[in-house]
Amino acid sequence: MSPFLEQIELQLHEALEKDELESLRPILNDEYPADLADAIERLELDDQYEVFRLLEPEVAAEVLNELGADSTRSLLERMHPTEVGDLLDEMPMDDAVEILTEDVPEYQEKYLAEMDPEDAAEVKRLMQYPPESAGLLMTERYVHISADITAAQALNHVRQVDEEVETVTDLYVLDASRHLIGVLSLREIITAAPEALIGDIMETDLVSVLPDTDQEKVARLVSRYNFLAMPVVDEANVMLGIITVDDIIDVLTEENTEDILRFGGVEGGGVDQPYFTIPLLKVIRSRFGWLLLLMVADTLTGTVMRLFNGQLSTVVALSFYIPLLIGTGGNTGSQTVSTIIRGLAVQDIRFRDLFHVLRRELLGGLLLGLALSVVAGLRAYTWDQDPQLALVVGLSIVIICTWANLMGSLIPMIAHRLGIDAAVVSAPMISTLVDATGLFIYLSIATFILGL
Amino acid sequence: MSPFLEQIELQLHEALEKDELESLRPILNDEYPADLADAIERLELDDQYEVFRLLEPEVAAEVLNELGADSTRSLLERMHPTEVGDLLDEMPMDDAVEILTEDVPEYQEKYLAEMDPEDAAEVKRLMQYPPESAGLLMTERYVHISADITAAQALNHVRQVDEEVETVTDLYVLDASRHLIGVLSLREIITAAPEALIGDIMETDLVSVLPDTDQEKVARLVSRYNFLAMPVVDEANVMLGIITVDDIIDVLTEENTEDILRFGGVEGGGVDQPYFTIPLLKVIRSRFGWLLLLMVADTLTGTVMRLFNGQLSTVVALSFYIPLLIGTGGNTGSQTVSTIIRGLAVQDIRFRDLFHVLRRELLGGLLLGLALSVVAGLRAYTWDQDPQLALVVGLSIVIICTWANLMGSLIPMIAHRLGIDAAVVSAPMISTLVDATGLFIYLSIATFILGL
Repeated sequence: MSPFLEQIELQLHEALEKDELESLRPILNDEYPADLADAIERLELDDQYEVFRLLEPEVAAEVLNELGADSTRSLLERMHPTEVGDLLDEMPMDDAVEILTEDVPEYQEKYLAEMDPEDAAEVKRLMQYPPESAGLLMTERYVHISADITAAQALNHVRQVDEEVETVTDLYVLDASRHLIGVLSLREIITAAPEALIGDIMETDLVSVLPDTDQEKVARLVSRYNFLAMPVVDEANVMLGIITVDDIIDVLTEENTEDILRFGGVEGGGVDQPYFTIPLLKVIRSRFGWLLLLMVADTLTGTVMRLFNGQLSTVVALSFYIPLLIGTGGNTGSQTVSTIIRGLAVQDIRFRDLFHVLRRELLGGLLLGLALSVVAGLRAYTWDQDPQLALVVGLSIVIICTWANLMGSLIPMIAHRLGIDAAVVSAPMISTLVDATGLFIYLSIATFILGL
Repeated sequence: MSPFLEQIELQLHEALEKDELESLRPILNDEYPADLADAIERLELDDQYEVFRLLEPEVAAEVLNELGADSTRSLLERMHPTEVGDLLDEMPMDDAVEILTEDVPEYQEKYLAEMDPEDAAEVKRLMQYPPESAGLLMTERYVHISADITAAQALNHVRQVDEEVETVTDLYVLDASRHLIGVLSLREIITAAPEALIGDIMETDLVSVLPDTDQEKVARLVSRYNFLAMPVVDEANVMLGIITVDDIIDVLTEENTEDILRFGGVEGGGVDQPYFTIPLLKVIRSRFGWLLLLMVADTLTGTVMRLFNGQLSTVVALSFYIPLLIGTGGNTGSQTVSTIIRGLAVQDIRFRDLFHVLRRELLGGLLLGLALSVVAGLRAYTWDQDPQLALVVGLSIVIICTWANLMGSLIPMIAHRLGIDAAVVSAPMISTLVDATGLFIYLSIATFILGL
């Protein structure tokens, strides 16, 4: 993954063995924080602290931000609260919020008391925003200028911007009451005539978000407009802060994890934690709910079977095709759901397209079912030499595939309409729904055709 | 989604009705390309061309880049090849490559002949890189400087950089043979002492990728190091170009779509196309292969049932629990697969962790199975009043869940080891695998406990 990680690990192990860690100080402080964090996480907890102690405050702050919850907690617990406060002061405040709310929530008050009052106030403001909201990704440190200065003055202003300001790539133009009235890039400032007025060269068609906007929506907007940062404003268009593109990339990566887990039927919570660091009981808790619900729903299959008890006793061979038929239905439904939830997520599909979608999936299911029924029917005929049973199996496949396709499109569309993220409709959910209904379809067709 | 789209649409409809499109020209050229593209795509094909014709070349080039394949093709077909060549010259060459290879492959030669020879040569170079590789996202236009100039000279150089260079945020330092020897940000140039030498202030711990690096790997590196662009070099470290962060965001979004579709059992191809624009027959073709394969694999369930024909005829109630048991097994397996493929994707899990993973999933499956077996066993007892049958059902759930958990972790790990993307292991695949094996486990336990 990283071109440097292995070397750092090697150096650390050697230095730890020879008890010469101190000699690594200059080298370590020159490494990328992400690499340092990975190397540190692979050490024993006591060694982690010994290495972390060697880092300059600004490097330590960045490394802390890259570490997992367990290492962060263990390191902070070994430090004096005053040191922790200083370290938190060093980092962008959205990152400090993440650590204080997710990694060490129980020490929040203690550490906040040790922070610089201004930083602590910013952290407290940010902590009030809802989970998954734009506000939590925001930093209040950005470059702002007024419209009546010149490009040359703006450039000079950028030169004096505090190092703690993460990015100076975009400059935000505010009026006297801090309303956002324009934006321009550092490049535009540099290439403009030095005496040009900011008000004359700034972009005024502004895209901004409210602090309670969902993070995924912010990510879509940044992706749509190819921004490097997104301004956050309140209802009155007063500038609150910016969200930088590196946070957007993290949102997209987490969203991907969340969507795959949900689609597999694992419900959220701690999804950004590495596989091995989530306590097993927590994993089981987050999986058990869905499994139990689906299993209870699946007991309906037993009810359907009992309903057709007579037919199944008369023609035992009927039961031999049950797993095949409901399995194929579940697979077809899973495919459809995956297509629809992505279409909804990237907004290729809207609820008003419902009729259009259903028509398309109806036709698609019918065609897939017809193609599969040829194979299934032939297999049934070669097995049981009974043309009528083969017909039952073939016809059931057609209807079950069509039905699965309809359910697989209708249910996520309805969830979306109800304001529920369509991604909660998982592959297991659709398989389970198709189990009982598919069984009913199959046994009804059998009863009719075989005259049972 | 967009704050501007609705207004543009309204203006376009009004102007089209009154035949006053020309009057919109200045307004249209001032809009965001992504919004223009969306508004244009919602028009009839003839109207699309009428609107597109009004755009200035640089705006038109950006809009074209945001349009879907169908609109792009229809617009280009209505234009003179010379005009198309000029338009392609206007855009970043990685985008031109995308259009020429994906949207209008059959006109590739014709349009290339109309492009500026230098641009055409760049396009041809880029087109040689393999699919999904870094080379295809690369632009050869970036800011490069030499190490022996001063910060002030570098800043002056940035001022004169051609507008076609997408980004000036990072400056790359090359030696006389174009080897990449350093990088620094525009911000560092601006804040450095004007007389400071680039060679003294540049970052020399460089992260770069080869042109055939997988795009997803580039995305992980950009995300890891919070870069705004990634340099691409050849084996000899000669600089070839850069990949900008907006392309990385597109990769992550497409990856998300691809992963969900694959996990749902739909095999790739044209995944970046909007839902309604993919021809239905193409969708069916990409779904049919997996469905057929899984269905054929699922005929194994029939073989298992026939194997236990005697037992199933003796105790018909046994068959009533089949869908429930294999359904629960499939659901458990789907959950595990989703966890493992994400762990592998973000590199929380490596193949050398195999033993560790299997132990964890074995224990997890056992605990989940035990918890579920209580409910399933009780339901079986209240249904059939047969404690032995209830025991069979309960015990089967425990073993099937454990088995599904093991398969759900082992199979993606092995795929990963074999160099296959673990994401090809879909929920339907695991469900199908658990169908026949789960059935065998259940009926074997029944035979043993019920003494059949």
